[in-house]
This record gives sequence, C-alpha cells and structure tokens, in this order.
Amino acid sequence: MLVSGIPYRTIWLHEASVRIIDQRRLPWTFDLLDLHTVAEVAEAIRDMAVRGAGLIGATAGYGMWLAAQEAATQKELQSLADSLISTRPTAVNLSWAVNRQLAAIQAAGFQNRIETARITAETIADEDAASCAAIGQHGLEIIQAISARKPGQTVQVLTHCNAGWLAFVDHGSATAPIYAAHAAGIPIHVWVDETRPRNQGARLTAWELAQQGVPHTVIADNTGGHLMQQGMVDLVITGADRVTRTGDVANKIGTYLKALAAMDNGVPFYVALPSSTFDWTLSDGVKGIPIEQRAPDEVTEMEGITDSGSIETLRIVSPGSAAANYAFDVTPARLVTGLITEKGLCSTNEAAICALHGKIPNSNLTAPLS
Amino acid sequence: MLVSGIPYRTIWLHEASVRIIDQRRLPWTFDLLDLHTVAEVAEAIRDMAVRGAGLIGATAGYGMWLAAQEAATQKELQSLADSLISTRPTAVNLSWAVNRQLAAIQAAGFQNRIETARITAETIADEDAASCAAIGQHGLEIIQAISARKPGQTVQVLTHCNAGWLAFVDHGSATAPIYAAHAAGIPIHVWVDETRPRNQGARLTAWELAQQGVPHTVIADNTGGHLMQQGMVDLVITGADRVTRTGDVANKIGTYLKALAAMDNGVPFYVALPSSTFDWTLSDGVKGIPIEQRAPDEVTEMEGITDSGSIETLRIVSPGSAAANYAFDVTPARLVTGLITEKGLCSTNEAAICALHGKIPNSNLTAPLS
Repeated sequence: MLVSGIPYRTIWLHEASVRIIDQRRLPWTFDLLDLHTVAEVAEAIRDMAVRGAGLIGATAGYGMWLAAQEAATQKELQSLADSLISTRPTAVNLSWAVNRQLAAIQAAGFQNRIETARITAETIADEDAASCAAIGQHGLEIIQAISARKPGQTVQVLTHCNAGWLAFVDHGSATAPIYAAHAAGIPIHVWVDETRPRNQGARLTAWELAQQGVPHTVIADNTGGHLMQQGMVDLVITGADRVTRTGDVANKIGTYLKALAAMDNGVPFYVALPSSTFDWTLSDGVKGIPIEQRAPDEVTEMEGITDSGSIETLRIVSPGSAAANYAFDVTPARLVTGLITEKGLCSTNEAAICALHGKIPNSNLTAPLS
Repeated sequence: MLVSGIPYRTIWLHEASVRIIDQRRLPWTFDLLDLHTVAEVAEAIRDMAVRGAGLIGATAGYGMWLAAQEAATQKELQSLADSLISTRPTAVNLSWAVNRQLAAIQAAGFQNRIETARITAETIADEDAASCAAIGQHGLEIIQAISARKPGQTVQVLTHCNAGWLAFVDHGSATAPIYAAHAAGIPIHVWVDETRPRNQGARLTAWELAQQGVPHTVIADNTGGHLMQQGMVDLVITGADRVTRTGDVANKIGTYLKALAAMDNGVPFYVALPSSTFDWTLSDGVKGIPIEQRAPDEVTEMEGITDSGSIETLRIVSPGSAAANYAFDVTPARLVTGLITEKGLCSTNEAAICALHGKIPNSNLTAPLS
C-alpha cells in the first residue's frame, strides 16, 4: 500500500539484508530498518518493530534465510530456528513459518539451504499478500451490495484496532475490502476506533488510511454504539486473533461491545481473516480461548508527541489507583454476520466453516477426498 | 466524603467567600479555591473548576449570595443572575438555582436579599447532599441483596464516567450506593471505566474511590463486556444527564455499550439520578435528546503528568487524521433494569416513573391531589 504516494510492503529483501518498516515509531515517524542477522530479526519481533500475525510469520520466514547463511551445520540451523520461535512463543504464525522453512530445507538438501530459504521466504510473503488481496475481493462484494442500495452515497464502515496492511505483508485483513472498495471508486468513509489501551486504531489504522487517501475519522471506543443507533454505520469489519471452528471470534478487547451494538441496530458485523486464524480444536470460544492480561501501565500511561515533536509518555490515571489490562475478548458467533476469508465468504456456523475448509464438523480430521 | 482522611463537600461558605475544590487540576493536585465575586463564580463554572449538574446548581446558588451583596438594585441583581446563567446555557440546574434565588428574594423583600440568599444557597446545597444520601440508601438495598446471595464474597460493581460526589455537593449519584455499601461493611470492588475521551473515570472516580478507601481498578472502556461475560461484574451503576419520562437514559458516551453487555449477560444495569434529571417533555430518548458534539482535540490530545510532576498535553492520534467527539449516548429503557432516585427505586417504564413522581402518564401535567 501507499506511503507518501509510493507503494510499500511491510517487509522485503534489500541487498543482503531484510528491510522492514519500523512500526515502533509510527505514526510519529516513518523509518525503515535493515536487519542483517538472525539476532536482529529476533530483536525486531520481540520488541514489536514488526507485529501482527501475518507479518510476524513473514518476518520469521525471512529470518530463516539469514539463518541459512549463518548456519554451517543442521544443528546450528535448528538452534537459530529455536531462537526465532522463542521471541513470541504464542504467535502461531511464527513457529509455522520457521517449521515450513526447516521442512523445505530438509527436502531440498542442506547444501541448497540458502537458495531454498530465500525462495520459501518470498513464497510465504507472497502468499500472505495474495491471501489478503483475496479477502479484499470477497469483502468488496459486501461493500458493493451496500453501495448499490444507496447509490452515490458514502458507505460508512466502522473498524476496531489495526487489522491493516501493517499487520500483514500487504492489504491487511479488515482493511483489505476497504482498500478494494476505495480502488474501485466506491465512496467510502471509515470510523476508526482509537482502540485503547494501545491505540492501534488512532496510531496505525488512521495512518494507513491517510496514506492511502481513504476518508476516515478517529473516534473514542465509546462512540460506535451511538453512531450505529443513529444510522451512521452501514457495516462493521474487524480482524481476528483466533476463530473457533464454530465461529466464535477472539479479537482486540472491545470487539464484543461493537458486535452487540451492531446486532441491536441491524448493522452487518463481519470478521475478516486468513484461514490460518482458525483454531480447529475449539468449539466454545468464551470458555476455551485464554485471554492474555498485559502490563497495567498500558492503561495508566500514554505515549504521544509534543508540539515540538518529541515523543513522551504521561501518567493519565489518578496516581495511587491500579489498572487491569485484558487484551482480547470473545465475540460469540451468534453476533457475527459472516466471515470474510481468502477462500470466500462464510456463515458463522460449524457446518459452513468446515465445508469451506474441507473439514468434517465435530472432528479435527480433514475430509477425505472422494 | 473524605480527602486525605478529612470530610469535605465540593463547595461551602468560608468567611466572606465561597470555597470550592478546583477540579481542573484533579487528580494531579488537590487545590481549594476561594471565589469572592460573581465574576469569579461565573469563571469557575465556565472553566469547569466545578462541573456536574448538582454542583453547578449549588455553585450558582452560592453565586447568588455574592450577587445579593454586589447588587444595590433589583435590576443589578437580575443582571448578575443573567451573567451566571449565561456561563453554561444548557445546564438545567444552573438556571433552576438562580431562578429559585430570585423568587426567594422577591418573596422576602429586596432589603432582606443577603440573608435570604445565604439561607437559600445553603438549602440548595443541603438538599443536593440529602438527595444523594437518599439515592445511596435506596441503592444500598440492591447491593445488600446481591451480597446476601454471595456471603463473604466481594460485590463487583462497574461504573462509567464520574457520577461521584465531585459532580454533586456530596455522596454523588452512581457512587452513593457504593459509598453506602462500603460504610455498611459490605466487601465491594469497583471496575472504573476510564471514560474516554475526557477520562473522568480514570481521573475523578478513581481519585474519589481511593480517597474513600474503596477498592477499585481502572479499565479501558473496551473491557466491561469481557468482564461481564466472565462473570466478574455483579452490577452496573451509572449516572445520567437526562432521562425521559419513559426511562430512556442520556449519559456519557459509551453507557449504551455497557448496557448492551449487561443485558447480554444477565447483569443488572441501574441508573442513579436525582429526580431533577427527568425531562418530562420527552418520551423517545433516541429520537428526542440532542447529542452534544465537543471539540475533536479532546480525542486527539491527552493530558497527563510526567515523572517529574509537570502536567503536559500530548497528541495521541496520527497527525493528519481528524477525530469526532460525541459526548453522550442514549440507552433505551429496555436495557435499564431500574432507576435509583432519592424517592426510591423505580422500574424503567412511564407508568412507574410517573407514579413515583406524581405525574400523569402521557401528559406533562402534575397529578391532581385527591
């Protein structure tokens, strides 16, 4: 997507290094960062210079290309792979990408490891971008249908957190249909939840949309219910961190409240996700998905920029009062109108989700070919 | 209520002046401010050194005591009264208190204006405190009933914004039942919504509860749905800015989302208010109550305190992105379990609300005495 009018991905090969957008300083400054070693890649993942499931997977893939160059033996390669996986142990895409690289290198032979790892890394990144582009095209159908019912008028979309291209290699998940509609000339405006406590909406989604020229307005997370009640939202699209085989959606804290408001006001509520986000082992998201608690200082402190351009952090909660920081919540499938995946649109029930993915309902088995 | 262990009201007579808690600098510093003239009172209201319906009314009442001293003629008194009313034209309690003072002075005779105004000002303040205390006792019944069902366990209350004693003369509305339960020895813990964009929860409610020694935890506004879903909230209590005769509740933006989550999880959702908050002319809150839009910089900027103790403001939204700032929303009566008023508990329907207040349903008339 565009940054200052120039097309970018979030990660790419640049000479002998891996180049990324350093997301720690967005939206205040746009810096590129070159990673020359596996240790630098690990640090970039650990310190969240890159974040988001898709991008973490792609970064680990490129990290294994550097690992293939650093490792003289299979044992050293495995050790470097382990060092990458340990940076964020709960990121499923990270270990998936590393293990895909190890399997590819094993299949090609250790002596071909560098070229194999480069091709595999590029393939992982390209697949992520293609998957998001497909999500965009499937979601575009929904926006086109809404636009057809109000010709010439602006389609109003509300989104929560950042499921944008910064979280993937390109396009994003929740943002992909928005970018596709904007590219197709459909007038569109996005209500951007600021998404406390980490403000990924106000910082990242707003920045992305501004760079792409998509009209948008940042709102406090409290605002969406009022907007829906007043007919000012046509469609809600969020991303997802984990979705059960029955369609329960774990996503950034506060998603559930927006889904309740959408249901109460007859506003369609869609979740956009690559199919890798499904957890086929779970059927009850509210009971089964553990909710991470993060550091309270993400609630009690706030980073921003001064008039003179320096980045500072302030205490914003009454001193002496403690805070709790639940990072995600679970939106039950009954509140979700549908899922937008790279394979197509899908109702939020086990039969439909399994049918789209060749899974047998009430089973972890893949359906036999027949 | 207590500040550093000493009982305070938010406003009181002090020698020849009116003394207030300067709420502009809370929670960072606790400053008292003496108002010596009507002009100083007007500035304190306009600049929100005092805020909240009950406290604005009481402040206007005391302001009229100063006006009675400054005015040599009835015309001058009226002019000073007008200057007070114009500070925040939409604050109903403000004009109500000023007009009550004018009527009292007229009844007692202009030559008795100073003593009459002093007595009336004290009466307005005392009535506000007594009304909130009564709300506390009626709300205490609800908390006692919950506590009886889980003996020895902590009652978990969630509140939004600041409907605390800082918004009234004493006790508050939503907080009054909490303080009453705490005083009665019922173990209680409060989840405090930070309440973006102005953070009245994180700044004022948290400060109040800490000063009173009530256990509490500040949370991002996004969090309440997850807590209710996980059985971590027994009761929601909020205040109200305006309530229709049918029980629709206008309150701080985001209240509606919490009411939806309470309904979805079977959590009782109560609204505490003095009966002066009812708008007897309205029967459809969603259609009839205008929602104020405030300055976008309340969303895009954030005030806080640095490690070294200086109060600063930062930009927290991506530069170049605009924001919208809707200050209130409307929670339909169907989502509200009941109302807690100084006259008692009340169901959220027109018949019950009118019966409690001697009004005739579907009419603006007061019921005839019979």
